[in-house]
Amino acid sequence: MSIARTTIAALLLTVSAPALADTLVDNVRGSTITSGGQVETFTGLLFDDAGTIVRVIHAGDKKPKARKEYQYHIDGKGRVMLPGMIDAHAHVMGMGFAALTLDLSDTTSLQQALDRIRTFTAEHTDRPWIIGSGWNQESWKLGRYPTAAELDAVTGNRPVWLERVDGHAGWANSAALKAAGVTASTKDPVGGKVERNADGSPQGILVDGAMALVAARLPAPRPEDRDTALATAQQLLFKRGVTAVADMGTTIEDWQAYRRAGDANRLYVRIMAYAAGVDNMTLIGGPGPTPWLYQDRLRMNGVKLYLDGALGSRGAWLKTPYADAPGTRGLPQLSQTQLGNLMSRAALDNFQVAVHAIGDEANATAIGAIEDLAATYKGDRRWRIEHAQIVDLKDFARFGRSGAIASMQPVHETSDRIMAEARLGPDRLAGAYAWKSLKDAGARLAFGSDAPVEAADPWAGLAAAISREGSDGQPAGGWQAQERLDRASALAGYTTGAAYAAFAETKFGRLAPGLRADFILVDTDPLTASPAQIRATRVVETWVNGGRIWSAEEKPETTSNNRR
Amino acid sequence: MSIARTTIAALLLTVSAPALADTLVDNVRGSTITSGGQVETFTGLLFDDAGTIVRVIHAGDKKPKARKEYQYHIDGKGRVMLPGMIDAHAHVMGMGFAALTLDLSDTTSLQQALDRIRTFTAEHTDRPWIIGSGWNQESWKLGRYPTAAELDAVTGNRPVWLERVDGHAGWANSAALKAAGVTASTKDPVGGKVERNADGSPQGILVDGAMALVAARLPAPRPEDRDTALATAQQLLFKRGVTAVADMGTTIEDWQAYRRAGDANRLYVRIMAYAAGVDNMTLIGGPGPTPWLYQDRLRMNGVKLYLDGALGSRGAWLKTPYADAPGTRGLPQLSQTQLGNLMSRAALDNFQVAVHAIGDEANATAIGAIEDLAATYKGDRRWRIEHAQIVDLKDFARFGRSGAIASMQPVHETSDRIMAEARLGPDRLAGAYAWKSLKDAGARLAFGSDAPVEAADPWAGLAAAISREGSDGQPAGGWQAQERLDRASALAGYTTGAAYAAFAETKFGRLAPGLRADFILVDTDPLTASPAQIRATRVVETWVNGGRIWSAEEKPETTSNNRR
Repeated sequence: MSIARTTIAALLLTVSAPALADTLVDNVRGSTITSGGQVETFTGLLFDDAGTIVRVIHAGDKKPKARKEYQYHIDGKGRVMLPGMIDAHAHVMGMGFAALTLDLSDTTSLQQALDRIRTFTAEHTDRPWIIGSGWNQESWKLGRYPTAAELDAVTGNRPVWLERVDGHAGWANSAALKAAGVTASTKDPVGGKVERNADGSPQGILVDGAMALVAARLPAPRPEDRDTALATAQQLLFKRGVTAVADMGTTIEDWQAYRRAGDANRLYVRIMAYAAGVDNMTLIGGPGPTPWLYQDRLRMNGVKLYLDGALGSRGAWLKTPYADAPGTRGLPQLSQTQLGNLMSRAALDNFQVAVHAIGDEANATAIGAIEDLAATYKGDRRWRIEHAQIVDLKDFARFGRSGAIASMQPVHETSDRIMAEARLGPDRLAGAYAWKSLKDAGARLAFGSDAPVEAADPWAGLAAAISREGSDGQPAGGWQAQERLDRASALAGYTTGAAYAAFAETKFGRLAPGLRADFILVDTDPLTASPAQIRATRVVETWVNGGRIWSAEEKPETTSNNRR
Repeated sequence: MSIARTTIAALLLTVSAPALADTLVDNVRGSTITSGGQVETFTGLLFDDAGTIVRVIHAGDKKPKARKEYQYHIDGKGRVMLPGMIDAHAHVMGMGFAALTLDLSDTTSLQQALDRIRTFTAEHTDRPWIIGSGWNQESWKLGRYPTAAELDAVTGNRPVWLERVDGHAGWANSAALKAAGVTASTKDPVGGKVERNADGSPQGILVDGAMALVAARLPAPRPEDRDTALATAQQLLFKRGVTAVADMGTTIEDWQAYRRAGDANRLYVRIMAYAAGVDNMTLIGGPGPTPWLYQDRLRMNGVKLYLDGALGSRGAWLKTPYADAPGTRGLPQLSQTQLGNLMSRAALDNFQVAVHAIGDEANATAIGAIEDLAATYKGDRRWRIEHAQIVDLKDFARFGRSGAIASMQPVHETSDRIMAEARLGPDRLAGAYAWKSLKDAGARLAFGSDAPVEAADPWAGLAAAISREGSDGQPAGGWQAQERLDRASALAGYTTGAAYAAFAETKFGRLAPGLRADFILVDTDPLTASPAQIRATRVVETWVNGGRIWSAEEKPETTSNNRR
């Protein structure tokens, strides 16, 4: 009986759905990257009410028939259509919270930052702690870290905690250090450092493993705050044309916020989650990765593991000492054995593994661990190395052979190059942010932003990937220009490459029949425009699953989206 | 545009669904409790493919037309149709795990239990710990607790941990005590007691707050184990005709297992979850109760708080000392202030509060807290008192006025009466398991099993509720017979009353148009049969949401269920 009912219902759906409400968007200059990595151009897209692409219309094709092949027609007005951009490495909740807290990322001097902090503190007298992020003593040309004393002068006795732009150091005022009980007698924790004055007293900066000393004392955000942060992050992504994002370091609290949004039809972006460590992995995923939930809007793919820190804070794990700090090679967070054990624990239950590796020693260690595990854990594992920022030239071939995915963030190169030259000296630069060499060696590229470390802006990323020039056009011709990437490969990094890196290539990342209708309409063709033009790209509309969820001209039509 | 699509789609669904696959079940002797608490009899039920009741057919009504009003016809063969039974108080994962671990609940002597333990230990050499539950020294007529030494003799050096039937005491062997570091020098934790030998050395029994000393050392179940436990629990419920259950003390791990089942269409039963404490409450629900998920199969309503322990283990909080242990009044887990603060924290975010209160002091304290909070937290709060087992006669009127729900377990009365007489002495029995008096005082009744403490068997519960006689028919005429309940009120306790207690009365709990088609076909009418016949009720079929998910005659048709 029930079988019969099932069949009847299924038939009805199959028959009626396409007839029901197919939509044609035509008169577009469309480009998508094929599974073969080539550029395919097209003029229109036909998709059904379930948000699935039915047909891609090419120049010279017979036009679909109105009423027969589609119900709704949208004139693309000659705009450029691309697949929705995919950010292969971001921190979704971090983006939202950064937007809701004090953002210092565009400050160019310590004084400007202090003025901003004074104003924000005065404007938010209700907050027991003043929390912010985005500062970078390098962009301030300060030549040193800022101090607690400098903060005290503008914040008084309320505790203040400001994370560095790379999230690998924190700036605390005296009230915060007091609240955390950090004194001259506090020892540096493993993998961390308390910057100190001559007398050993804390100077106000806590690096990597030492950040928790204060971070652990911060008032936890309420669930309502998390929901607000997620909504904010989604808007930040959509206005840049990003329709899917890999969330690197998902906690159970983050996951619950994603599920709340999904349950309430408030989850529009597609999130591929990588749990913050194996405990979150097991709690979120249970015996293995979750299914794709909410029409492929949410899946927990695997786990994010930290092997080292960042370059700016000298936490990156290098093979030889820092050029500008000969006493240290960085702050490894795990030994190769510890890394192998954690990766093994995850792979055992078929979780995907994403290893944060910035320094060349960290990258060599991660590749070594993958080589070891590949023998045990066969099949399609798609080991990811996040950042792969500094790789020893000797290791490129190994990297390629390992089949690892190089999940890189092109804008880091343009933001960090001067700092990188100081940290690494001249001899290690050829292996820094070397996406072209990694691709040629056989590694798969996936591009992202590392937002909120950088803006979640794929256009700045595309420009950097093909030009190696900063937003100021410097250095002309590009830094380490031999690593410039061809445009198709750069676009692939933000579409098909990022989808593949998250086991999503059969669902989205390109525009083809059977895949999700996730696309954007923009005013610039990244395959022909200049880097400056690409950086200035205006996103006109962002569509997810056949529903327009963002428009530069109107309010997003959440109605149509909610239905899907 | 999207609006239009929405409307068209909505219309199509509205129009087509009823025509699509309505089902008529007729030739039944149906009874359901009306919202007014009366018995309504009927002969057939018509429901649509979405699992919603369209019509209840009464004797003399015009018969629905085949093909026009329904597609599928099922002959009820004159069986009794009732709404699916609702268990207002159970521990879903505990039920499943109890079924997968050593079950001593039917042992009638220490020797029989020891033989069972020896066999189970020998059969499961792979398990690092031997875990079980269900023992009750009262049913063994032992007159004392069993000892670690007695366990050692049959288990050797493998740690063994066996929880008492009421979950308020644990029996450990020497290996388990050693693993937990429990020695003569271990102090009794707050709200707990380590039973000791003359020399102060642990005797093998840990009561209430002391149980964690060993329980914290148990290997955590793997997610796969939790999934198996949930599947097992669902089968145990369906074969007894239970289609919905309030889960009293849901952890985040439990919740994730429920969501995994829901996401994979393996969640058939309806679970109303009450989080284990406010931390789980916030983590599971976030800013408030979750929505009803998976076609009303899962919702987190609120929080479960423990105010005292159980009577058998002398953890129940009494106004005057135990008759058989004049030195103690029990083990309160919270002060009235602490209880009020936790209840306030929950009510602030509109979470429902369910307070475990067994002793008369605990019940008076819980009512007092409700009286205090009712002034602040207006609206439909449905404060629940779980067990309400021993209530001071002076407090009945207050209980009623407070509007609190008395969530009681009729079988506890028949299982515990002899022990209760020993613990309470003659003067407090009139207020023990006094469902009739509580109802007459104005309290709302919800009935459950407290499974796995007792079997999840509403038929034994109905028999006990109306007869106050045990399965042996003793004492003839019923214990404290003045508390026997009329049959309609007893059935209401397991249907409309249990639904109301969980904010589900508009969704299920009775058979009426617009509600979910959750019903059972049984061979006995609890409104006319003898207590013995009711206890022996055979459930023939169990249906949830218009899908048959259990049958005494066939494999469950999970297909039809999976679709809904």
